[in-house]
Amino acid sequence: MNHALRLGRRGLGNVWPNPAVGCVLVRDGIVVGRGWTQPGGRPHAERVALAQAGDLARGATAYVTLEPCAHHGKTSPCAEALVKAGVRRVVSALTDPDPRVAGRGHEILRVAGIEVTQGVCAAAARRAQAGFLSRLTRKRPFVTLKLATSFDGRIATASGESRWITDEPARRHVHGLRARHDAIMVGGGTARADHPSLNVRGFGVPRQPARVIVSNRALPDLPAEGGDHGPLWQVSGAFDDIMADLAQRGVTRLFCEGGGEIAAGLLQGGWVDELVGYTAGVVLGADGRPGMGHLAYDALGNAPRFELVETRRIGPDLFHRWARPDAEF
Amino acid sequence: MNHALRLGRRGLGNVWPNPAVGCVLVRDGIVVGRGWTQPGGRPHAERVALAQAGDLARGATAYVTLEPCAHHGKTSPCAEALVKAGVRRVVSALTDPDPRVAGRGHEILRVAGIEVTQGVCAAAARRAQAGFLSRLTRKRPFVTLKLATSFDGRIATASGESRWITDEPARRHVHGLRARHDAIMVGGGTARADHPSLNVRGFGVPRQPARVIVSNRALPDLPAEGGDHGPLWQVSGAFDDIMADLAQRGVTRLFCEGGGEIAAGLLQGGWVDELVGYTAGVVLGADGRPGMGHLAYDALGNAPRFELVETRRIGPDLFHRWARPDAEF
Repeated sequence: MNHALRLGRRGLGNVWPNPAVGCVLVRDGIVVGRGWTQPGGRPHAERVALAQAGDLARGATAYVTLEPCAHHGKTSPCAEALVKAGVRRVVSALTDPDPRVAGRGHEILRVAGIEVTQGVCAAAARRAQAGFLSRLTRKRPFVTLKLATSFDGRIATASGESRWITDEPARRHVHGLRARHDAIMVGGGTARADHPSLNVRGFGVPRQPARVIVSNRALPDLPAEGGDHGPLWQVSGAFDDIMADLAQRGVTRLFCEGGGEIAAGLLQGGWVDELVGYTAGVVLGADGRPGMGHLAYDALGNAPRFELVETRRIGPDLFHRWARPDAEF
Repeated sequence: MNHALRLGRRGLGNVWPNPAVGCVLVRDGIVVGRGWTQPGGRPHAERVALAQAGDLARGATAYVTLEPCAHHGKTSPCAEALVKAGVRRVVSALTDPDPRVAGRGHEILRVAGIEVTQGVCAAAARRAQAGFLSRLTRKRPFVTLKLATSFDGRIATASGESRWITDEPARRHVHGLRARHDAIMVGGGTARADHPSLNVRGFGVPRQPARVIVSNRALPDLPAEGGDHGPLWQVSGAFDDIMADLAQRGVTRLFCEGGGEIAAGLLQGGWVDELVGYTAGVVLGADGRPGMGHLAYDALGNAPRFELVETRRIGPDLFHRWARPDAEF
């Protein structure tokens, strides 16, 4: 299942609004097929793995990170495909909360006499598919907020110089994170000041993330959709409406890169599921520009706590990732 | 030698102005004696190891993290003691820059027919004894600057609430770092606002660090020296004079805990050799209090860069340590 989870993650950022699923077929202790949801969402992971296995799928065990689909869409359901291929047992991590599936995939398998084991590595699968689950159950994307700062939390000198606080490996890492998200959000101020490209460079992604600019004013001249740039969406208003709108458009994973006011608004509204920090070994002082807007907490206890889930060195910089512990999908 | 270096570090913070040296005696592949500089600076590491080895020192190899002393002080020189004990070979990491030694320790050994190998693990020894070397060659202590902040670099809410941003394990870790320094420095504002104890609690240290308050105004009522508190020194004026004064008083390792103006002054003057950060998974916003004063860098390139040397999780918080790469002693 860990292997299947790793495969599934390959789809993050390029299969939305579909889930990024992984599937491994094992027969007699040998992997006979591996698959993950393909760019755009089809074929599904199970289809890819079954096609790879061919006749070897007969009698095999299928490890899938999400319940196989049960609904007739562009193709017949994966649950039926697994039955037809003669798979003997299916081990799944999660039940699909999509009302068109919701246990009916497992049911099709059981009715056909296939042994089904559910809930294996469920917690890890929930984390890996947090965006898909969030969109379905919370009707809003999973939100990651990024901040790249000096040792003392500054994003630019007093004069506004910000290129570069973190080094090239960290900046490349940001592109890797962008590639695993469906959409990138910045505020209008950032868009006007920095003309950010908001695309993924150097990773050969099959699909560029959508660009979301939060502003009710005219936007600067940004590249049109196509080629190296995803769709460009201007949004404004309350975050409740923005998030519902983004979920409606199919966004499961949203990556916010500032500015400070947008970041503060997301935090205050409790929208942030994950904080990602890059810290450089340089100190810019209180006259440097802060990466975060005003939060107006009158007591320390009112500020939500995030849990450290990952930290490591990237080039000369420090990378750290924190998760909201009470996030539930 | 790595073993000897680990032993030597045990003396940091309680042997100043003496060096914190480690010594391991090995005969026929077996450790027959281990020693480190004792609290207050005497006995020296070699004496402790020789006493432990007794007759087994004859024919042994001595690994010492600093050249054995050559000067007659309260006792006869360690170089002579090694000769007298019949040690066959001495492996040392560094030549002692103290003009009373400066190679004469090695010379005494060689003249007595002992094989001497110098410079083994010299870089690691230089880091371990940076304070001692700094005081002798730069005439000022090695300076560590600590900052414990929120994810966005704040040390308190707008209302001034700062207890606690980091959790108990990180705060205990700070006491461990204090224990390894000779003196703790804070500004007068911090002393007046927080009445900090500036001592080491919970580590059973043989010697409390000196308390250095940078202020030209009256100090608040702080505990007198004795028991759980080291000497209390009020200093003021230019950092050049303060640092020379501290070196004169014997301080080899200085730990600065703020406030922001002192921290900024130390950084601007190029006094900081090491940055120590504790980052908590909480965001306080631009209205929170910054941990650093104004630095007035007009260009990013003017801000010195520190190199990440260590990072790890301490309780729920993130610990990171950065060294000034061009520091030379």
